[in-house]
Amino acid sequence: MSIATKFLCGLLAALTLALSANVRAQEFARPESFTLRNGLEVVVITDRRAPVVTHMVWYRVGAADEPRGYSGIAHFFEHLMFKGTRQIAPGEFSRTIARNGGEDNAFTNWDYTAYYERIARDRLDLVMRMEADRMRNLRFSDETFASERDVIVEERRQRVDNNPGAVLGERMRAMLWPHHPYGTPVIGWLHEIEALPRERALEFYRTWYAPNNAILVVAGDIDAAELRPLAERYYGRLRPTRNLPARIWVRDPPNVGPMRVTHRDEKVRQPSFTRLYRALSYGTDTGRQAHALDVAMEILGGSETSRLYRALVEEQRIAISAGASASSSGLGGGSVSVWATPAEGVTLERVEAAADAVIAAYLRDGPTDAELTRAKNSLAANAIYARDSQESLANIYGASLAQGESIDDVVNWPRDIGAVTREEVVEISRQTLDLDASVTGWLLPEEGQ
Amino acid sequence: MSIATKFLCGLLAALTLALSANVRAQEFARPESFTLRNGLEVVVITDRRAPVVTHMVWYRVGAADEPRGYSGIAHFFEHLMFKGTRQIAPGEFSRTIARNGGEDNAFTNWDYTAYYERIARDRLDLVMRMEADRMRNLRFSDETFASERDVIVEERRQRVDNNPGAVLGERMRAMLWPHHPYGTPVIGWLHEIEALPRERALEFYRTWYAPNNAILVVAGDIDAAELRPLAERYYGRLRPTRNLPARIWVRDPPNVGPMRVTHRDEKVRQPSFTRLYRALSYGTDTGRQAHALDVAMEILGGSETSRLYRALVEEQRIAISAGASASSSGLGGGSVSVWATPAEGVTLERVEAAADAVIAAYLRDGPTDAELTRAKNSLAANAIYARDSQESLANIYGASLAQGESIDDVVNWPRDIGAVTREEVVEISRQTLDLDASVTGWLLPEEGQ
Repeated sequence: MSIATKFLCGLLAALTLALSANVRAQEFARPESFTLRNGLEVVVITDRRAPVVTHMVWYRVGAADEPRGYSGIAHFFEHLMFKGTRQIAPGEFSRTIARNGGEDNAFTNWDYTAYYERIARDRLDLVMRMEADRMRNLRFSDETFASERDVIVEERRQRVDNNPGAVLGERMRAMLWPHHPYGTPVIGWLHEIEALPRERALEFYRTWYAPNNAILVVAGDIDAAELRPLAERYYGRLRPTRNLPARIWVRDPPNVGPMRVTHRDEKVRQPSFTRLYRALSYGTDTGRQAHALDVAMEILGGSETSRLYRALVEEQRIAISAGASASSSGLGGGSVSVWATPAEGVTLERVEAAADAVIAAYLRDGPTDAELTRAKNSLAANAIYARDSQESLANIYGASLAQGESIDDVVNWPRDIGAVTREEVVEISRQTLDLDASVTGWLLPEEGQ
Repeated sequence: MSIATKFLCGLLAALTLALSANVRAQEFARPESFTLRNGLEVVVITDRRAPVVTHMVWYRVGAADEPRGYSGIAHFFEHLMFKGTRQIAPGEFSRTIARNGGEDNAFTNWDYTAYYERIARDRLDLVMRMEADRMRNLRFSDETFASERDVIVEERRQRVDNNPGAVLGERMRAMLWPHHPYGTPVIGWLHEIEALPRERALEFYRTWYAPNNAILVVAGDIDAAELRPLAERYYGRLRPTRNLPARIWVRDPPNVGPMRVTHRDEKVRQPSFTRLYRALSYGTDTGRQAHALDVAMEILGGSETSRLYRALVEEQRIAISAGASASSSGLGGGSVSVWATPAEGVTLERVEAAADAVIAAYLRDGPTDAELTRAKNSLAANAIYARDSQESLANIYGASLAQGESIDDVVNWPRDIGAVTREEVVEISRQTLDLDASVTGWLLPEEGQ
């Protein structure tokens, strides 16, 4: 039960690329898909290499759908979904999967909540029966709710409150999205988790956990003809939510100018510089803008051959790491991060100035043809690797559909990446790398430490 | 129909002092008060100097009570309340007041919405009948709603969007209050004003505009025995709102570190430095903390004899204005602002560093006895002046009650200010003037301008 909350900007970069961009290049085989009468979308990715299946249910609900003041509900359900139904005792879900040689997990984002099982093909029935059961029939006592809240509070303490980089990252997001719900952390603000009322949480579950708000993705040793009767049997009889709310989120006011925040903490061993910029995403772009953004950030900072890494780490030797990445998968918009960790004795001022000089040169001159080709090839290579993993493919389709894209968008992604032009890269870079739409964060030890 | 939105930090300072602190010192005579059976609180401030009355209705609802995504509703009603009822045609309210020799106005804050009339004593019946009528019986057409929205959009354009200082101030507040509704501007975000649905606005009115959520303040040539039958006659028959919602606002996460934002605009003729700090308020303090904060800020920057003014303007001659003030009246918390406008050719870096040096010395040494005495006397002097104005007194009682204080709090205010000790001033200053709880704003012309 881990959450893909992208707390750290470095981590955010890695995760985002994994889910949205690098991972998807080249030709993807078109999966089969169908929709049940109750609204459940089903995607089947056949992979006969082994008698194994990856079974995922993606709910089109996440932290961004939480009522203001009740942050953390979506992630809370990622925990509660393991607390049992009339059929299944608390904790029994994962034990049953494990006893049958499988593994399971779940994760929460602003846009979705997803549940995952990987198991032998001949146990798929079991998984589907249990997963369908908890879509509508979750039961948990007041005591379970309260004790799980303690678990989550502890999770937050460990992951965020004891992690100065995560604390800074949360605030930077709050500044970047001053009004939009993407500014609220997925795990929730501590004081709101602590006060979350059970009834409010249940209302959230009853509204959003429904077949007409979910996507079933099954990858592995199965095809649509084989899956459909199982899907009908287990999921087909579930009641949809009537009047499912539209996912309409408040929008942010226009940018005003560069924002900055400095966080000092005695636990910081390694200072770092991070900048977030507002960006569009696959969920909000038109045409190939998000593709161009992924290519642009790959060139600027996606690898050890990128401009930022070469300039700051190899040539100037003022940083031990430096990079950039696009968080381009969001349904409601995206962001770009640029970061550097200074070498011993180098100030954050200096690495920031050096990073800004690299960015300025990039915006002025644009990428070389060699850089453009290499970036596209690199995205393609990662996608080939991703294609080899049943789990990666299931993730890509599930997340993409939950974040407003179509199967065609995913299938065509490699072609669209290949078609990105130098001009598109220059234009999206200039549009995005705008200090007026940015938050710069400095992470430092306590003064005099 | 002006809004007390405190857009500019300098303006914010002035308004806040006017409403919360300076204005209230020395002994206030205790006003009479009573409550009608439908919950309406009534305060009567007798002042027989002239046959005139000031009549105010304060609603315990403001911008902080708006549903997320519908900013601007509270201020919208400040306009709509002049659009008529079954009895009174659109625009007729103010025309009637004027025809009878009176004047009227209204204003909106995060905590309250208030309606004001000043008129001859023998016309009080008329005012009360009309004001009571629009508390529950407001009527406006779709067309009126739409055209008033255009008026408000234009008001916002003029007051905020064409005013770089106001634009910066809005963003600074959004950063200072990243989650709490005080981070949303009273006038509303432009895109939300433009999309405000009439039904949602009406729901807000029906809920919050009610006798059990209002305070009637009448000051002037009248006493409680004379007012009570009028109050019963006009307001006494109004239906209260059942299950009036509690005014519970989301709280902010803990501070992370110093935040900064720079706003450049070609319209800026005069650069300026402003810093906001989170602070407590009369609505959130315990004991005399808010009193001590008012005294502390008076010493630091409340006048031309204050530390900031003397150091930056008179001694160093690097600024043409400099000051500090406490916005201490909020029901949900307060803030402190420190600002300086550099002299020709002086950078914002330099005035900011000079202001920080003044603050550091103040926090290190505390005020002198002479400063403490002078600050208290100054607050007292302003209060004497305020006492002479019927309108000021009505404002003070109305705002204080709407912001969570009692009549006793107001009556005792001069005594409590007089009792503030040097140690209390030092303690609250050190607690409040904490860079980790601050946002620093720089307002500059476009580069190269």
